[in-house]
Amino acid sequence: MSRRNPLDPRQSLRAMRVVGRFVRRQVKGAGVAPGTLVHTGKQKMERVRIRAIDYDAERLRESEVDSVDEVLALRDAPSVSWINIDGLHDVDLVRRVGEHFGLHPLVLEDLVHVGQRPKAEAYPGYDAVVLPMLDWDEEGGFVREEQLSLILGPSWILTFQERVGDSFEPVRERLRGAKGRIRARGADYLAYALIDAVVDRYFAVLERIGAATEELELEVLERPGPDAMARLHRLKRELIVLRRAVWPVRDLLNGILRGDSERFEDETRVFVRDVYDHSVQVIETVESLRDVVSGAIDLYLSNVSHRTNEVMKVLTIMASIFIPLTFMAGIYGMNFEHMPELAVPWAYPALWGAMIAVALGMVVYFRRRDWL
Amino acid sequence: MSRRNPLDPRQSLRAMRVVGRFVRRQVKGAGVAPGTLVHTGKQKMERVRIRAIDYDAERLRESEVDSVDEVLALRDAPSVSWINIDGLHDVDLVRRVGEHFGLHPLVLEDLVHVGQRPKAEAYPGYDAVVLPMLDWDEEGGFVREEQLSLILGPSWILTFQERVGDSFEPVRERLRGAKGRIRARGADYLAYALIDAVVDRYFAVLERIGAATEELELEVLERPGPDAMARLHRLKRELIVLRRAVWPVRDLLNGILRGDSERFEDETRVFVRDVYDHSVQVIETVESLRDVVSGAIDLYLSNVSHRTNEVMKVLTIMASIFIPLTFMAGIYGMNFEHMPELAVPWAYPALWGAMIAVALGMVVYFRRRDWL
Amino acid sequence: MSRRNPLDPRQSLRAMRVVGRFVRRQVKGAGVAPGTLVHTGKQKMERVRIRAIDYDAERLRESEVDSVDEVLALRDAPSVSWINIDGLHDVDLVRRVGEHFGLHPLVLEDLVHVGQRPKAEAYPGYDAVVLPMLDWDEEGGFVREEQLSLILGPSWILTFQERVGDSFEPVRERLRGAKGRIRARGADYLAYALIDAVVDRYFAVLERIGAATEELELEVLERPGPDAMARLHRLKRELIVLRRAVWPVRDLLNGILRGDSERFEDETRVFVRDVYDHSVQVIETVESLRDVVSGAIDLYLSNVSHRTNEVMKVLTIMASIFIPLTFMAGIYGMNFEHMPELAVPWAYPALWGAMIAVALGMVVYFRRRDWL
Amino acid sequence: MSRRNPLDPRQSLRAMRVVGRFVRRQVKGAGVAPGTLVHTGKQKMERVRIRAIDYDAERLRESEVDSVDEVLALRDAPSVSWINIDGLHDVDLVRRVGEHFGLHPLVLEDLVHVGQRPKAEAYPGYDAVVLPMLDWDEEGGFVREEQLSLILGPSWILTFQERVGDSFEPVRERLRGAKGRIRARGADYLAYALIDAVVDRYFAVLERIGAATEELELEVLERPGPDAMARLHRLKRELIVLRRAVWPVRDLLNGILRGDSERFEDETRVFVRDVYDHSVQVIETVESLRDVVSGAIDLYLSNVSHRTNEVMKVLTIMASIFIPLTFMAGIYGMNFEHMPELAVPWAYPALWGAMIAVALGMVVYFRRRDWL
Amino acid sequence: MSRRNPLDPRQSLRAMRVVGRFVRRQVKGAGVAPGTLVHTGKQKMERVRIRAIDYDAERLRESEVDSVDEVLALRDAPSVSWINIDGLHDVDLVRRVGEHFGLHPLVLEDLVHVGQRPKAEAYPGYDAVVLPMLDWDEEGGFVREEQLSLILGPSWILTFQERVGDSFEPVRERLRGAKGRIRARGADYLAYALIDAVVDRYFAVLERIGAATEELELEVLERPGPDAMARLHRLKRELIVLRRAVWPVRDLLNGILRGDSERFEDETRVFVRDVYDHSVQVIETVESLRDVVSGAIDLYLSNVSHRTNEVMKVLTIMASIFIPLTFMAGIYGMNFEHMPELAVPWAYPALWGAMIAVALGMVVYFRRRDWL
Repeated sequence: MSRRNPLDPRQSLRAMRVVGRFVRRQVKGAGVAPGTLVHTGKQKMERVRIRAIDYDAERLRESEVDSVDEVLALRDAPSVSWINIDGLHDVDLVRRVGEHFGLHPLVLEDLVHVGQRPKAEAYPGYDAVVLPMLDWDEEGGFVREEQLSLILGPSWILTFQERVGDSFEPVRERLRGAKGRIRARGADYLAYALIDAVVDRYFAVLERIGAATEELELEVLERPGPDAMARLHRLKRELIVLRRAVWPVRDLLNGILRGDSERFEDETRVFVRDVYDHSVQVIETVESLRDVVSGAIDLYLSNVSHRTNEVMKVLTIMASIFIPLTFMAGIYGMNFEHMPELAVPWAYPALWGAMIAVALGMVVYFRRRDWL
Repeated sequence: MSRRNPLDPRQSLRAMRVVGRFVRRQVKGAGVAPGTLVHTGKQKMERVRIRAIDYDAERLRESEVDSVDEVLALRDAPSVSWINIDGLHDVDLVRRVGEHFGLHPLVLEDLVHVGQRPKAEAYPGYDAVVLPMLDWDEEGGFVREEQLSLILGPSWILTFQERVGDSFEPVRERLRGAKGRIRARGADYLAYALIDAVVDRYFAVLERIGAATEELELEVLERPGPDAMARLHRLKRELIVLRRAVWPVRDLLNGILRGDSERFEDETRVFVRDVYDHSVQVIETVESLRDVVSGAIDLYLSNVSHRTNEVMKVLTIMASIFIPLTFMAGIYGMNFEHMPELAVPWAYPALWGAMIAVALGMVVYFRRRDWL
Repeated sequence: MSRRNPLDPRQSLRAMRVVGRFVRRQVKGAGVAPGTLVHTGKQKMERVRIRAIDYDAERLRESEVDSVDEVLALRDAPSVSWINIDGLHDVDLVRRVGEHFGLHPLVLEDLVHVGQRPKAEAYPGYDAVVLPMLDWDEEGGFVREEQLSLILGPSWILTFQERVGDSFEPVRERLRGAKGRIRARGADYLAYALIDAVVDRYFAVLERIGAATEELELEVLERPGPDAMARLHRLKRELIVLRRAVWPVRDLLNGILRGDSERFEDETRVFVRDVYDHSVQVIETVESLRDVVSGAIDLYLSNVSHRTNEVMKVLTIMASIFIPLTFMAGIYGMNFEHMPELAVPWAYPALWGAMIAVALGMVVYFRRRDWL
Repeated sequence: MSRRNPLDPRQSLRAMRVVGRFVRRQVKGAGVAPGTLVHTGKQKMERVRIRAIDYDAERLRESEVDSVDEVLALRDAPSVSWINIDGLHDVDLVRRVGEHFGLHPLVLEDLVHVGQRPKAEAYPGYDAVVLPMLDWDEEGGFVREEQLSLILGPSWILTFQERVGDSFEPVRERLRGAKGRIRARGADYLAYALIDAVVDRYFAVLERIGAATEELELEVLERPGPDAMARLHRLKRELIVLRRAVWPVRDLLNGILRGDSERFEDETRVFVRDVYDHSVQVIETVESLRDVVSGAIDLYLSNVSHRTNEVMKVLTIMASIFIPLTFMAGIYGMNFEHMPELAVPWAYPALWGAMIAVALGMVVYFRRRDWL
Repeated sequence: MSRRNPLDPRQSLRAMRVVGRFVRRQVKGAGVAPGTLVHTGKQKMERVRIRAIDYDAERLRESEVDSVDEVLALRDAPSVSWINIDGLHDVDLVRRVGEHFGLHPLVLEDLVHVGQRPKAEAYPGYDAVVLPMLDWDEEGGFVREEQLSLILGPSWILTFQERVGDSFEPVRERLRGAKGRIRARGADYLAYALIDAVVDRYFAVLERIGAATEELELEVLERPGPDAMARLHRLKRELIVLRRAVWPVRDLLNGILRGDSERFEDETRVFVRDVYDHSVQVIETVESLRDVVSGAIDLYLSNVSHRTNEVMKVLTIMASIFIPLTFMAGIYGMNFEHMPELAVPWAYPALWGAMIAVALGMVVYFRRRDWL
């Protein structure tokens, strides 16, 4: 198995342990009040990257700035503004943005305290959405999870990512293209578009896992090797991770649909319903794949049992035929002085006959039991 | 196992992989706005087939047209019109129809973006229903899933299928027959009739799977071969697919019953309740069959264990009887110069006696343990 | 295993296959409108049997008639009338009754289209209740399911059964006896009494299955034979059937309790609550029995594993003791010219000593490992 | 295993079968109307025992009477009266009490028809509560279930038990002690106190099962014998019984909390909330214990597999070492006239060398595979 | 395995048995009224420790007193007061505090009757919260559970712990630091801060279990030893304990969020929502870890099966090759006088040839079956 085999269970388990995925949230230090900003994730980028897009139906201005102060004024612009911040380790920057936009201390804490449970919460003046960005790690062969925080104000959106990703590039393209409804609509529609882009990524991950599942299933059917089980376990594990990540996303979108938030207009809500349907579909597919993997595990186990049974049959047949014969030969290998058979001329061929009869008897018996 | 065996697990798994059933929804390309029409399914027909039926209690006009423009005028006719479009690859045609009937961009996207989760959504002026048409693929031996979209307007219905099927032929027959209540009622009743025809098909698929299940169960009981497990796994898998397809259909029909849609009159709703009951029955049957298949798998595994146990007993009995005897014969095959027994005249028959005693002892022992 | 053994799994599976129990509902033929009367069950009686009882607190008239027309007039009698029809194959008769009593086409369809999901539906002027009559088939040893349809009007009740049964005889007895509250009450109380009689039958079936379960459990504990597993599977299967049949009955009774129907007076509803409790109890008992059967299956499997382990131990002990001894004997059976030991007078007894030492060593070793 | 071992699975299964616990409710005879009083339980006492307590804050009168008529007058006393009847076989007595207190026929039926599902039902003028009294049968080692019926009127309480038990003795003690709030409060508080006493008993049963579970778990870990599995199965079974008994009790108490009954004052309801919490805790503990027992079963099975593996290794090592050696010895035991090796002086020691080399080779091979 | 190995399953099971964790609640003695104070836990401290903190935005007074009377006056102080009592065995002290603060008898009973189900209950004038403090016992290697009771009045908080712990030290630090919002807010915010500190501890426990799980998973994959299963069982058990402890905490926090209590201001409720999210995350992580552990158990079992299969193959190959050869050698070891082959000069080499052919044949056969 090559070092880069994306399904080598041992390697990827080691990779995942570094990530610490099942219990990712670190305990805050002693004496730390809620709202204290301590970045708990790993620093995944050298420096923070700040990009802003400001648009209305007619024009669009895109900029990448060094200091966050250059874009803070966008808050009060009548046009729709989207400030995207990649990298969370600069806690001061996050605090400055938070104060300027009037964010609640808990919202700020969640921004930098990655590993939050996905949620959408309405605060006065803005909504705060936390949801996972999932990616398939080609090298390690596992699901990589990063936290996206999205703050939706009346005419602005802030997004915070752990590192630069290309999930939002399609949305930027559509904004630049000045086509479609995205430029004509408000910040809530942009928020929808961003969430939609994130959820669409889940399908890409699912496709990878789905393909791996069906391939393994076929392998288990055709030539079940000793690694199959470990790889099936791997897949099951990734599906557990996926499931845990996506379940709360469904609730979150349902909350928006039910109108927990006032930010989303009815017209946009039709689109959110569409994303909601997709999230349900992701969950249902994950559940189906879990069932398929469980089935494949059963299949593998039954296969091992069956093969053990086959091995045993061969042993039993060989031993049952030859052990009696060896005994018969052993009898006439004895050195007793008084063994009248030894002198009988036809004793030797007669013994051969008896031996063949015994062997044939065994064969018939085994055939009757359907072992041969 | 012949090539056409509908239950050959290997073959059908391969067939299914082509279909890509568990993760069917492809990710949209980059920069694609919601509502952009890209057909994601496979083109299953050479050219689109458009059929229209227009009727009221007195008369019925049926036509198959080449261009969709010929039937667009039906929208404003006072009679009930049903336009059925088979084949989804002609995206322009779909867009033209959509614009003429004022469909929402998301509805249009769902039409061509096959693999949607089943749903019924009320839009101003019309309802959009997406539900799966299930069929049993005789050749590959698996459940084939296709998407039906049904748009129900005030006096018209649009249906979009991935390819020409015969599911709706019975409904057409009833329309042509001018008998029964179908001609006297509105478009909502026709919508009910079409959905009913689709759900009735589910029972046909269930019957095939049910028959296969009961046959396999019997086989596992009577002569459990090595393929049984793989075929049970196959059935389980098909049931997973079926379940995932039908669950949302129940919710969809329940939504109509609860009155999410204004299109359905109370009188028709009585009939929808009937379809709803059928969908529940399908789900319950799928669950029961899953339980039965799981039971059969347990049965098979216990069978393998039991057979291994039987094989081991034979080996143990043969070995336990003959190995000591062989040893005894081996003793007197030794060539020591001073072995007084060798010269005793009755030593040879005495040894035979001892050997028979040992063998009988073993037999008695094994009988006591109920192994013989 | 005798031919009439009620638990022979093979035989009853064959019997059940004939019944086709998991997917019982046949697809309607092409071009068949809802409400078209096609009897889908098997004709279980030669001719339809029609019995009517007409009573009030003072008098009771019982009759068995040849033509349904003789009893149709009972509809408008002020007394409570109960018309019971056994046999569903005479579709014309059913239609005539239906028209006379003003039944909805779907109700009529459900009457003859047996295998419906149990339900209670309120129609203007009457309620329609479909529920399964369960019986234990002594011959085949499985749960037999038949459909009872009960139509409850203002002062009349129609019941339709697939064949003559004795479930309602106790109710008739009580009516004839002119004692108790049944004669003083309206048709709703009679409906309750009939449903109660049906649900009481479920307990009789449960008792049979419960007794079989506990017997098998004991057998698995005391002398687990190879058939035990197949019979456990059988029981599990019957419990699946039972569960699927009874679950909807609970919902149905709950619907009546919640007041979906206006037919049932408050005073009668107290009694319906009692039947409802019984239906819940049936379901809980089925679930408990399923758990017990699953536990017994685990027990059986562990038993097989344990016995295999025992068999292996015997083999291993026999082989480990005698194979080395046979080797030692084999050494001195060799015919080398230069084997100095052969001439040593005490070599033979010394070898015996060594052999006994080796055998004892093995015995000690196996005792230490707790194998002996 | 001694006769009184409380965990001997065989013995207690037999004991339980007598009890008939999973399907305890017998079907009423034919022609029996609801409300007909037929005692379906076993007569557990020779004669019915009737005890009455009548109290208010100042005084308390306790009496044991022979005829129920002596206590019927308590109904109209202004003080709180509690009439406790042990033994249900005297159906006439039950009917007389029922008529005097104006009980509904169904309530009376439930009193004597033991094995009812636990429930609390409000009737005009009184509440009827049925709940199970659970006890640990020391002799048979299983959970014994008896039915308690409690009728709560405005100022009186009737309790009916299958036999004399000591569950209520603590409550009587508190009443006699004239201390605490129990004497100052109404009949609803007494009802609470009685129910609380019953639910507290559940914990005593749980403690027994919990202790047995943890002991068995330890046994499976340290010295898994062949009986462990059967005893684990036993425990699982008792937990199924317990669960089925206690689940409805929770619903019953929740119903009282929600205010289904008007009998309970708000002040008392605070105490009922406490009992409710206890019932939830019992259920949660039962579920946890079920999980623990399932885990222990898995542990046991893995243990058996592991031990089989160990046994196989010993056999394989012994056989693999000595079978080739025996073959080698066999070669030179042949009597061919032309076997040049036989005459070579160093052939015998050389063969020994070869044999030792082969044996060592096998040992090294097995060590490499970690089998030694 | 060293004595301090935190995962030695045997040792910790013994340790846990002492704790009696699954059924911790002892039954009250006979004749004990609800509200009677009997400490049911073990006395975990020599003497009770009473600490009080009294603060408002400007000043803070901290004191440790010997007699509870010194701090009772804090009840009526306008500042926020927090009285923390470590040690519950001094029942008189608890009663005195309870009377002074007007606590309900049931609340007092819950204080000393440890092992209560977590709950938050609103009483007039105060709220009573019971929740578990979880810790990881380094020595025994299991989850230690202790009960925290928190009584929240208008301006005071009482906390009762079973023994001195350091969970609340961070909160004290923040209070002393006079920084942040904690000093400026009311008692409800302090209650939130304390609950938050408790829930944060759960993550610490989860991290330990999560790390152990991933380590064991890797061990099972790489070198599955006989102890792995027992340790997996251990982990599963701890997760059962954790789950049972944390589930009710979620409900409790949800109750506060829904506004069951009037004590918590809206501003504080935003923070409670945050703790609620954490409790949900704990539960989801526990469920995921349970799935992972179950998967690892399956992996282990499949591993044992696979290894047994490997062992069997070696045995079968060795036996199948050498048993026939030994038989062949045995033939020519016989002493018949008339065995013509023995005199043939090339018989010996010919036999060798035949033997090699047989051995090669077996090797080829096993290679074909993929066993070599």
